[in-house]
Amino acid sequence: MDRIEDLKHLAFEKKNLDGFLVTNPCNLFYLTGTPGAFCMLVQKHGKSILYSYGVNYEQTKAEAKGPAVELIKRDEVPGVKFAKQAKASKIRKLGLDDMSHSFYRQLAKEMRGQTRLKLQVGLVWELRKVKDEKELELMRKAGKLTVAGMKVASESIRPGVTEIEVAGEIEYAIRKGCGYGTAFETIVASGVRSAYPHGGCADRKIQNGDLVVVDVGAAYEFYRSDMTRTFAAGKPTAKQKRLYEVERLAQQKAYEAIKPKARAKDVDSAARRVIEDAGYGEYFVHGLGHGVGLDIHEPPTLSQTSKDRLAVGNVVTDEPGIYLPGHWGVRIEDTVAVRRRVAEKLTDGFYSLEAEK
Amino acid sequence: MDRIEDLKHLAFEKKNLDGFLVTNPCNLFYLTGTPGAFCMLVQKHGKSILYSYGVNYEQTKAEAKGPAVELIKRDEVPGVKFAKQAKASKIRKLGLDDMSHSFYRQLAKEMRGQTRLKLQVGLVWELRKVKDEKELELMRKAGKLTVAGMKVASESIRPGVTEIEVAGEIEYAIRKGCGYGTAFETIVASGVRSAYPHGGCADRKIQNGDLVVVDVGAAYEFYRSDMTRTFAAGKPTAKQKRLYEVERLAQQKAYEAIKPKARAKDVDSAARRVIEDAGYGEYFVHGLGHGVGLDIHEPPTLSQTSKDRLAVGNVVTDEPGIYLPGHWGVRIEDTVAVRRRVAEKLTDGFYSLEAEK
Repeated sequence: MDRIEDLKHLAFEKKNLDGFLVTNPCNLFYLTGTPGAFCMLVQKHGKSILYSYGVNYEQTKAEAKGPAVELIKRDEVPGVKFAKQAKASKIRKLGLDDMSHSFYRQLAKEMRGQTRLKLQVGLVWELRKVKDEKELELMRKAGKLTVAGMKVASESIRPGVTEIEVAGEIEYAIRKGCGYGTAFETIVASGVRSAYPHGGCADRKIQNGDLVVVDVGAAYEFYRSDMTRTFAAGKPTAKQKRLYEVERLAQQKAYEAIKPKARAKDVDSAARRVIEDAGYGEYFVHGLGHGVGLDIHEPPTLSQTSKDRLAVGNVVTDEPGIYLPGHWGVRIEDTVAVRRRVAEKLTDGFYSLEAEK
Repeated sequence: MDRIEDLKHLAFEKKNLDGFLVTNPCNLFYLTGTPGAFCMLVQKHGKSILYSYGVNYEQTKAEAKGPAVELIKRDEVPGVKFAKQAKASKIRKLGLDDMSHSFYRQLAKEMRGQTRLKLQVGLVWELRKVKDEKELELMRKAGKLTVAGMKVASESIRPGVTEIEVAGEIEYAIRKGCGYGTAFETIVASGVRSAYPHGGCADRKIQNGDLVVVDVGAAYEFYRSDMTRTFAAGKPTAKQKRLYEVERLAQQKAYEAIKPKARAKDVDSAARRVIEDAGYGEYFVHGLGHGVGLDIHEPPTLSQTSKDRLAVGNVVTDEPGIYLPGHWGVRIEDTVAVRRRVAEKLTDGFYSLEAEK
């Protein structure tokens, strides 16, 4: 696949490595088109080798586009096997994905005095964070399925229904629309738990007067989407309405700031300023958003501490939030693709506290 | 919580450490009862400190049982913060969960010359792999929900229905029964893809004559379950029936071998022998099973290379498989708790190739 060539260009021309070991599962899928391999050794001189355990070997062989496929036998130690290959290929500087420390130790032990290991956490991300048209098409589908799920949420939220029941209806709608599953664990957090950004979803009956934060994503093939809406169960109070308007404006201002070359920090600031000006700054307790793609959390990061800049093809979430501990929270989130002119929303609609009945 | 005391006993009396940094998310939940914290420093001298980022700080404070809770501010580097605390507490030998190599490097840099880091991958597992009665109760509930999902699978599999549609019906049944979600991505793999142990689930219409491998798990609260059945779409052939009988016998023989003090390797052998004797040994391409609990894959491991021994309170899967590449596969799996006398099945029933209509 061309993507392996792109990685070779980055790793061998720009970073001066002569080998790269891919271990992150989504990186492996991105580069090879198959989900179950264990590792891939990309070599400056010689063919890339995709390693697979017996359990997935047949699938890897059938699906992998490009690399040679090699079986890791039951009694083989992966570090020993890769060190042997690196030695045979005279690899001196081997770039690495981030990986568990225990696996790193195994590699370091086996390659000592032979191959220098260079952690390159961001290298494959350089490629993955810019989506091509084919990826965007899959992400549009994931976005449409997510909106279909949110529609069902807005129709099913009412006092007396449990959070889990609402989650069930959402996920069923996503499957009915041909979703490959959910992009992450569905959040339906009501009452005081709506003030927890990661409130999950439990066997709690929604009460009259609750706000309900619904955070859901569909997967289409291997691509993900991410969308949040907040609904009132019953008639919202004046204070709930006011907070919702602040939140909605903040989210819109950030959306308008999503442009090629924009500093991620400035996009965060566009939303944060609105919330701070309304006096709720201390209750916006997280960054504005994150990249989305094969993973649900990817680069670039949109926050006050981020050094990222946006580029055409990035797909990011725009999700400010205001959380009043002990009371309730509001969050509105869309998945947005950075385009040359106007950013493209991959999720849209349902910008109202009042659920549809 | 007593579990932190148990960890202190292991880490400080048996391993001679004077601090332990817990980073694995399920370990953190297991020890504190809350899911969103970032890290916990367990100290030989002084109170345990649970660190949480702003996004989850309120939830951590409200839910954590035992430790002091401390906020990691937006501009703080975790490694610097933990090193400062370790220095103040005069921690000389700090045990560590497995973690990403990049985070390990950050810690190692900040603690150099002050605190020795000792990777202790298995320490919290020593505790987690023995389930107490309260955990078993939650896992029984997860098991029952999983069986309810499998019932719906057996009723909905027929030629013309897609794999995704079947997955949707299964997951809906789990939610209707008050499931907290699925324990992993549901597999409904039909036709030649039934020969891939991790075949996933796609927009493919099930065909007459297919075998369909359904691998599903419900989550109840934070505990998981795991169950596989294989169904024929239409009338199974004599060869399919024969293979199914071999598989069923292998799975039963392993079940009978699940006892306290049994070597995990021998339990694997009990199933493998049946499959080898029938001439299909080379097509059983994975180990027999794995532990289940808060994670879907835990110790102990049941395979030919495992050095584990079973003990009362372990919960493991019993899932031999026979996969004929290019044709089809069969797998039958139950989640089983090791008890003093007879092992307890947490999933059960539907041991027939012929789906219920």
